[in-house]
Amino acid sequence: MPGRGAGMSEDTRDIEALIDLMARLPGLGPRSARRAVLHLIKKRRQQLIPLAETLARVGATARECVTCGNIGTADQCDICRSEKRANGQICVVEDVADLWAMERGQAFRGRYHVLGGTLSALDAVGPEDLRIPQLVARIADEGVGEIILALPATVDGQTTAHYIADQLPGVTVTSLAQGVPMGGELDYLDDGTITAAFKARRAF
Amino acid sequence: MPGRGAGMSEDTRDIEALIDLMARLPGLGPRSARRAVLHLIKKRRQQLIPLAETLARVGATARECVTCGNIGTADQCDICRSEKRANGQICVVEDVADLWAMERGQAFRGRYHVLGGTLSALDAVGPEDLRIPQLVARIADEGVGEIILALPATVDGQTTAHYIADQLPGVTVTSLAQGVPMGGELDYLDDGTITAAFKARRAF
Repeated sequence: MPGRGAGMSEDTRDIEALIDLMARLPGLGPRSARRAVLHLIKKRRQQLIPLAETLARVGATARECVTCGNIGTADQCDICRSEKRANGQICVVEDVADLWAMERGQAFRGRYHVLGGTLSALDAVGPEDLRIPQLVARIADEGVGEIILALPATVDGQTTAHYIADQLPGVTVTSLAQGVPMGGELDYLDDGTITAAFKARRAF
Repeated sequence: MPGRGAGMSEDTRDIEALIDLMARLPGLGPRSARRAVLHLIKKRRQQLIPLAETLARVGATARECVTCGNIGTADQCDICRSEKRANGQICVVEDVADLWAMERGQAFRGRYHVLGGTLSALDAVGPEDLRIPQLVARIADEGVGEIILALPATVDGQTTAHYIADQLPGVTVTSLAQGVPMGGELDYLDDGTITAAFKARRAF
C-alpha cells in the first residue's frame, strides 16, 4: 500500500513513487504528500494532468540566466534583457526566491544578481562557490554605480555583505534598511530588531 | 515575475502556472509552492523530470476500484483481487487515506469499503452520495459476517456509523476502540477521550 514501502504491489508502485517524490519537496512530509497525491488523483483532469504537463514543460525549458542567475527560459532572463529596467544599479540577493520577493515589492527597477547562497565557514562555502566573481566582473562591464545588498539579516548574510563590499572599492554599496516591519507590534519583535530600529531612528 | 500575476512575461509564464498549480495542493500555499518549484527547478534531473513522468503515468493509469473504492490501476484494486486476504470481514473507511493508514497498521487482513465521505446534514451529503448502497449490496453478495467501522470520531463520522449499522441487520458490526493513543499523555488529551477511555476501561 502507498506509504508503506514493504508489500508494494504492481498496482500501486507508481502511486507509491509519486508519494515519495512529493514527500521530498520542501514543506511536505510523508503525510501531506499522501494527501496531495490523493487530491491529485481525485482531480485528475483539472489538476493532475495540467500539473504533469506544466512540470514537463518547465523541466524542458527552465534554466539559469547566464548574467544574473535568475530563472527563465532563455540564456538571459527577461529582467536582464528588458530595456525598461534601469542600468547602473544591481540588487544582490541570496536566492531566486528573494529576487521574486523584491519584484513583488515593485520598489526596484534595476537589475539583479543572484549569489546562489551565502558565505559560510561551517558549510565550507567560499566566494568561488557563489556567483561573487561574476558580480565583480559585471561591475566593470556594465558601468554599475550602486550595489544594493538585499541579503538576509543573519550572521552568514551579513558576513557575505561585508565581503562583497570589500571587493568593490569605488562603488556605492547600500543595503536594505533594518527596522520594524509593516504591521509589526513592538511587543512581538525580537530585541535585536528593536535595537536596530532605535539606532536607525529618523526625524518624524 | 512568478507569484505576482501582473507583469508576467513569456519567459516565466510556465513557471508562474506551475506555482499556481502547486499552490492548490492541500497543505501548500503560495509561499511554499514557490519554494517547492524553485527546489524542483534546481533538482531538475533528480526530481523535476521523475515527478513529471510519474505524475503523467499515475494520471494515465490510476482509477477507483469498482468494488471497494480504493485507488489502483485495474478495475479491481489489488486488495479486492488478492487471494491472501480474508473474506467475510469488511472494514469501512471514510477515505482512501484512511484505508492506507489501516494498511500501515498491518492489523487487518480482510477487505475494505471506502465510503468517499461521511453523511452530513450541513453539507447535504446523503447515503446516495456515498458508497453505502454498494456496501449493503456487498454484504449479501460476498457473505460478509463482520463489518468493522473505522470512521472518524466526529459527529458526522459517528452519525454515518449508526446509519450503516441500521442498514445491516443480522451482520456483526464492530468499531475501532476509543481510548488513550500510544504515547499519549493524559494531560494533553481532551476530556472526551479521557471519558471514553475511562468508560471502556478493562481488567489489567
